Formats: sequence, structure tokens, C-alpha cells
Amino acid sequence: MTSYNLKQWFYVKRPDERVSEQHYALRESVISPTLAKNEVLLEAKYISVDPYMRIQQAAKPNWEQPHALNTVQGAAVVAQVLKSNSERFKQGDWVSAYSGWQTHAVVHANEIQALNPNDADVKTALGVLGMPGRTAWFGLMEAGKPKAGETVVVSGAAGAVGSLVTQFAIKNGCRVIALAGSEEKCTWLEKLGVAYALNYKQFDSAQQLHERLMELGGVDVYFDNVGGMNTDAVLSSLNLRARVVICGQISQYDGSLDNPELGPRFLHQLLYKRATIQGILARDFTHRMPEMINHILPWLKAGEIQFKTTEINGFENLPSALEGLFEGKNIGKAIVRVK
Amino acid sequence: MTSYNLKQWFYVKRPDERVSEQHYALRESVISPTLAKNEVLLEAKYISVDPYMRIQQAAKPNWEQPHALNTVQGAAVVAQVLKSNSERFKQGDWVSAYSGWQTHAVVHANEIQALNPNDADVKTALGVLGMPGRTAWFGLMEAGKPKAGETVVVSGAAGAVGSLVTQFAIKNGCRVIALAGSEEKCTWLEKLGVAYALNYKQFDSAQQLHERLMELGGVDVYFDNVGGMNTDAVLSSLNLRARVVICGQISQYDGSLDNPELGPRFLHQLLYKRATIQGILARDFTHRMPEMINHILPWLKAGEIQFKTTEINGFENLPSALEGLFEGKNIGKAIVRVK
Repeated sequence: MTSYNLKQWFYVKRPDERVSEQHYALRESVISPTLAKNEVLLEAKYISVDPYMRIQQAAKPNWEQPHALNTVQGAAVVAQVLKSNSERFKQGDWVSAYSGWQTHAVVHANEIQALNPNDADVKTALGVLGMPGRTAWFGLMEAGKPKAGETVVVSGAAGAVGSLVTQFAIKNGCRVIALAGSEEKCTWLEKLGVAYALNYKQFDSAQQLHERLMELGGVDVYFDNVGGMNTDAVLSSLNLRARVVICGQISQYDGSLDNPELGPRFLHQLLYKRATIQGILARDFTHRMPEMINHILPWLKAGEIQFKTTEINGFENLPSALEGLFEGKNIGKAIVRVK
Repeated sequence: MTSYNLKQWFYVKRPDERVSEQHYALRESVISPTLAKNEVLLEAKYISVDPYMRIQQAAKPNWEQPHALNTVQGAAVVAQVLKSNSERFKQGDWVSAYSGWQTHAVVHANEIQALNPNDADVKTALGVLGMPGRTAWFGLMEAGKPKAGETVVVSGAAGAVGSLVTQFAIKNGCRVIALAGSEEKCTWLEKLGVAYALNYKQFDSAQQLHERLMELGGVDVYFDNVGGMNTDAVLSSLNLRARVVICGQISQYDGSLDNPELGPRFLHQLLYKRATIQGILARDFTHRMPEMINHILPWLKAGEIQFKTTEINGFENLPSALEGLFEGKNIGKAIVRVK
């Protein structure tokens, strides 16, 4: 019976501030799995790190129970089938699965999705054709309801979701003002075709950024991945009947979900502008993946949508790759390449 | 030619904190108006004081330009026709008009609405059959989208709008948790049929009120007239797909519209619950008044909806009646009786 060297990152300590390697433990073992009917053995090739992981580590409730301690960190994975006891998969097949931060996993065939490497780079399953793409597409289109000619502001615009929202909004005929945290990110966003890329770190205050947004004509749709100062500035710059989509609040993930940071009260602004704020979550649109892929895949194949990744090499770097998200390190989707 | 003693309250100084008589000037004169074709001369009988007046006194933009200084304070009025040069009105007719804080006004017939005292007490034109009723009805039904059996939380529940929202939600088959600021208000709300009336002043913190709301099963619809601590508590107590209606933020009207108070950042909560916050404004529903009255008037005539007023006697007391709104003095609709 073939044996495999299994490596797993266990989530072992709840972070109070920024999550880092100290909250994880690497465990190694040798496994010789036998497969029940319809099970397959996967070998992880690309593993995802996503901001939502930190939300699940907050003490207060989120959309479900907090991530259990002393279990393998949950994550989306792109893997190849090593062994199969399912008629639907054979050795060498590319699949995506929610198998977490581990090099190998035995999963039921119903829990994995086949990937076609001829359609698109398999890594897209962790980005534009996966959860981030779904979040960006349905969040923008269904909650943001952008109309051609409207101004869409995206925070975290160079990130995994933000860079897709930015491009989808441009495809939709909108004028995009991208907010990002470095000149390098802004330069890339300009190449994507945004009307303005603003490095929010160049503004001394939310008030200054607000003034710039007002000079640029105000905001019809705001797709928010970041919260904090970016959002303070945008919420005071809304146009009549603006739609605000809350997708993430990454500026608050270093402990402020449990002990909220204070910010200016703004709800009165909604009243003046008859604006709407809506929180969205990728899982609400999971059943509509085929619809999303029908829209996006042709754009991707035609090169009309860019899918950019920041790849971190080495399974052992998963915790630091996750930490890097909160340092604003990545452009596009952060992905850990296992080997 | 008949002459009249005209009294007018001019808005003369922008308040930085709580609005009071020092921001107004009483001016008296004798007028002998001649009426152009289609004009009528009105004698004010009941004059409205409303929280929105303070919003219009903030320096920062609201839904329109701030109220101009050195002009008569704008306000809805119930009046009788003293003289008419319009075929549509005759002396003695009851009407409503937006003629402001003055005892007499010459207005075009197109700018006034006829009232039928046999249908309902004319004062209802300033409350349940006027702007507050319209706000409550459309705000609750169209933005709140309450379903029978859901829990509707109303802040400022004993106020002009809140007490109507409370009753409309009960008529709609909802369970209402009313938030108010005194035992007297809570006692009245219990008589109206709320499931729970909570005196928020009995809670030491938003956290305590949040815990109570969670004990009571959380919140499906929140109709917010108040903001601040009430709202902090409710926004952390939302159920899945909750709808939050921002109608007012009266706790912020003593200067915090221009210099925002700090409060806990909460937008991440919307994400977990896929909740929606929507700002509403009465004027968006003005053209649908007949529809609203068709719903409400039968209930009012049948005694199924209570319209409670706090009447303040004397035109000279208008500024202090306005100030009283921010002291939580009134139950139901605050109205100044001119004589």
C-alpha cells in the first residue's frame, strides 16, 4: 500500500490581533489511506489564503460558528487526484475542493468539482472562477446594481475580489474610481482601465479623500472590501440613491471585529441620499456558479478580464501568506503553491 | 380693508448644539393683504414642530440646501381660510399648507390641501394622515418589508413616526419590540399592543440592550428614528437578511451631524447577516398620499390606530416646542396650537 507524507497546518490559537504563524501548528505524519466507495485521494497543488479566514477566528458570531481550534485550517484548494474509487474521477484529474491547509485529503466525490485545464488555468478556481469571482460578480451586479455611466468606487481594488469588481464594472460601462494602498497597485489598476486610481495612503484624512471623491462627481455604487477610513470617506460622498455593497472590512480584521474600533456615525447620510447598504456573502450564490461562469469564462478566454495572482511558494508559508493579506502585500489573488 | 396682526418666527442663527429660542426671532406686524387670483389668506390653527427641522439647520448638506437664515421657519400647518380668491376654497375651510411658523399666510390654492373635519380630526394632517404617517407607512412597508410573524424593533417608538410604525407593524402581524426613553412611554406602548416595550435608559450599555434583544430572539426589521446607543445595540442583534430602515437619527441632531459622534464600527455585521440598511425620506412618497390614506383612514375611523398628540399651547412657544423634541418630552406628535 502506497504511503504519503502528510503535512497539515492546524489552527491552534485564537488571535486577538493580527493572525500569524503563532496561531498555527504544522503537523507531519505518514498516511496509507484506503478509499471507501466514491472517495478520492487528493494531492493539493495550490492552496488559498483569504481574508474571511480571519473573520472565522473572531470570538463573536459571524455567519456560522467560529473556526474550531485544533482542526486543520479550512481553505479552498486546487488539487490533483492521486487515487480514485469514484467513477467520476481518475488519477491526474484536476479538481477543486474545500480540503484545507493540508497536502493530502480523502474526500467524497460529491465534495469536489472537476476542473478543465484547457478552459482556464486551474488556479482560476481559487479566484476569478471561484469564490472571489462569484463574490465580485453577484455582489456587484445584484447588490450594487450598477448602471452604465455610473461611478463605481471599489476599495481594496487591487485585491482578489476588488480587481474583479473593478473589471466587471468597467465591462458594465461604469466609470471606476479604484482605492488601493500603494503606487504599484494604482499603476496596475490604471492599466486595467479605471478612470482614477487613488492611493488612500496619500490622503491625510477621510475628509481629504471625501473632498477628492466629491471633485470627481461623488459615488453611485460603492463596493467595500476594506472599511475604516476608506469607507468613512465614501459614505459621506454618496450620490442620490447610491448602493453600498459590504463585501469585506479587512481594515477591521486585526481584532476590531471583537472590540470594535470607533468611527464617525454616518447613518444620517443614508437618509439624505436614500442610499442602501447591503452585506453580501459568497455562499448565497454558490448554486449560481454555472451562470457566473457563463458570463466570465468567455471574457477570460478572450483576455478581456485579467486574473492576476500573487504566488507564495511552499506549503510551510501558508500562515505567513495569510498574515500578508493584512499587510496589503498581494496584488490580485494570493495563492500558496504547495511545492 | 381688514387688517391682521401677523406674528412670525424667523430662523436667525444657526445652532451648533441643541436648537432653542435663541436661534429664532419673533416679529410682529400688521398686514392688509390683497389677494391675487387663486390666492387665499390662511390663519394658522396648528403648527408642526418636527425633528427634520434641525437637520436642515446643520451646516453640512442634507437632502437640499440648509434652511436659509432670516426667513420664516418652514413647517407644515393646519389652517382655516380667512379670505379666498379661489373657486376651490371658501372662508372657514380647513386646509393644510407648508406655510411655516407664522399666524397668517397668503398662498396659492395649488399649494394647499383641503381637509375634511368629518373624516378625521384636522390635526391628523400633521401626523397620521400627513408627513409622519407617510414616512411610517411607506418606510416600514417598502423599505422594511415586514412579514407577519417577524420581529420589528422600533426606536423612538413613542414618537410621532415611531408610534405609527409600531401600530402598522402590529396590524401587519409582526411582533413589535418598542424602544423608548421613559416608563410612561413604555406603558403607553404596551397598551398599543407591543410584545415588549424597553426603556433604553434602564440599560447601562448598548451591550446590555443587545443581550436583551438576543434573548427576545433578535431583530428582523429595525425602524430607526434615533441612532446612537439604541442603534448600536440593534445592529449587533440582527437576524439573517434583516432590513434596517433609517428614518431619523434624533440622538445625533444636537450638533453631531456636522461633527459626528464616534460609535462602534458595525458594517461587518451586515456581511454576516446579509442585512440591508436603507435611508428613506418622506418626500419620496408624497405622490402616493392617496394610496396611504386609503389604507390608514379606515383604521383611524374604526379606532384601530391611535393618533396621540402632545399639544403645546401658544404660538410664542414654537421654538421651545421644537427644543422639547430633543429632550424626549413628547408622546406621539408634538403640535403647537396657535391660540
